[in-house]
Amino acid sequence: MKREELIENIKRQRSFLCVGLDSDIDRIPKHLLTAKDPIFEFNKAIIDATKDFCVAYKPNIAFYECMGPKGWDTLKKTIDYIPEDKFTIADAKRGDIGNTSKYYAKTFFEYMDFDAITIAPYMGEDSITPFLEYKDKWVIVLALTSNKGALDFQFMTDMNGEKLYERVLRTTAKWGTPENLMYVVGATRAESIGTVRKNVPDHFFLVPGIGAQGGSLSDTANYGWNDDCGLLVNSSRGILYASDGEDFAEKARQKAKEVQEEMSKVLDSKGF
Amino acid sequence: MKREELIENIKRQRSFLCVGLDSDIDRIPKHLLTAKDPIFEFNKAIIDATKDFCVAYKPNIAFYECMGPKGWDTLKKTIDYIPEDKFTIADAKRGDIGNTSKYYAKTFFEYMDFDAITIAPYMGEDSITPFLEYKDKWVIVLALTSNKGALDFQFMTDMNGEKLYERVLRTTAKWGTPENLMYVVGATRAESIGTVRKNVPDHFFLVPGIGAQGGSLSDTANYGWNDDCGLLVNSSRGILYASDGEDFAEKARQKAKEVQEEMSKVLDSKGF
Repeated sequence: MKREELIENIKRQRSFLCVGLDSDIDRIPKHLLTAKDPIFEFNKAIIDATKDFCVAYKPNIAFYECMGPKGWDTLKKTIDYIPEDKFTIADAKRGDIGNTSKYYAKTFFEYMDFDAITIAPYMGEDSITPFLEYKDKWVIVLALTSNKGALDFQFMTDMNGEKLYERVLRTTAKWGTPENLMYVVGATRAESIGTVRKNVPDHFFLVPGIGAQGGSLSDTANYGWNDDCGLLVNSSRGILYASDGEDFAEKARQKAKEVQEEMSKVLDSKGF
Repeated sequence: MKREELIENIKRQRSFLCVGLDSDIDRIPKHLLTAKDPIFEFNKAIIDATKDFCVAYKPNIAFYECMGPKGWDTLKKTIDYIPEDKFTIADAKRGDIGNTSKYYAKTFFEYMDFDAITIAPYMGEDSITPFLEYKDKWVIVLALTSNKGALDFQFMTDMNGEKLYERVLRTTAKWGTPENLMYVVGATRAESIGTVRKNVPDHFFLVPGIGAQGGSLSDTANYGWNDDCGLLVNSSRGILYASDGEDFAEKARQKAKEVQEEMSKVLDSKGF
């Protein structure tokens, strides 16, 4: 998907919500467990219930991998089921030497046909560039993550006062463009979102950490907004597991709608 | 596998070779392509040909993932085929928030029953500790990688002169022990292997970069040796693709034997 198409979708849907399909066999409603492919049944219902309120879907690959070959089937069927106008993100956090990264690119961009993949930056340029060679596909680099462990390395500071996550932004921004590169920036560190925005004014951010992890949508919008919106805010557990009963899809729809209405107000207030 | 068992195997086999099963459908001998599962046929022949000369096998997951669900079947069959006394490493370079990492651990330690998995450290403690909860299983943290991109971030230096890869060593060493934690240290930066060894005297290193990437075995042994050997040196392409004809297994055997003989001399010279 092209950047302008994503921006158009945000304007039209009045939403910058990404629904995280972290679909966990231990947490989905029990009545689905008799289905042939319970996770696919769950995902179908969640997608049907939320598609009017979001612009993107993000399956976390760990939840599919742990089911073995069947999990990859479920993931492929899920991707094929997501409507064409949604931006699809493989939350895979891959990253390897160039020779190997090109196989990960093949998996997620050719076989699975995702629009984007999340990448860990530790191994540097040749771990990222093989993904950037695909037209209209995106790399989403981990910059500042939402978890507690983010403090262990991402805030390391060099002699010029530059932090590791800032170096990651500055350096990786040279390898791609705002047309094919985004950043993961956690909502749990709202004040840092502003620092990231200063470093990379034009790029989109994928923002996890709203909901279960405690981040705030209004802080994220205050600190992270740019002229093109520049934000995809993810919610996974808060929507997926709004209910564990037969009404799970209806409850997920309500949750997604609530978030979308909040987002719509942000977009209105920005004249977007 | 326990540490003492690995050390015993190194002594008995007179080898600290790890064979990297980066088995690539585009590079395996053409006559295998008519088989039902060409990569599994290739892996079986490579394992049979090399098992007398190595102590470990390391499939890189990218090469299996890119074949979709079938690839996961092939990977599982391969792992099941590897002899019990070999140390098995999932070269997966995973790493996610704690809640998600536990699913990756489930995949590679329970479903696949690998002894070890490689992990990218960028997301910090909670991305690593879920793997350390498994008895007799190992985390192999990327510290200093063998690729060109290693220079982009791993050598970033803080105000006290500590480099990022040194901070990764110092910090992660507190989360595990030499009984469940190893480090990836690339052979292409031999002089740095010595620095790493000073930082973590007791841990094993998984050393890629010998062969196709240009690293040297004798430099690696000079700089990386500790009292328990402390080294698993990986070779992938140099062994797997020693020939692309019908004699590929015989040629792989010869290559593995050559490396093992060189390693045997190192072990002899250390009185190990």
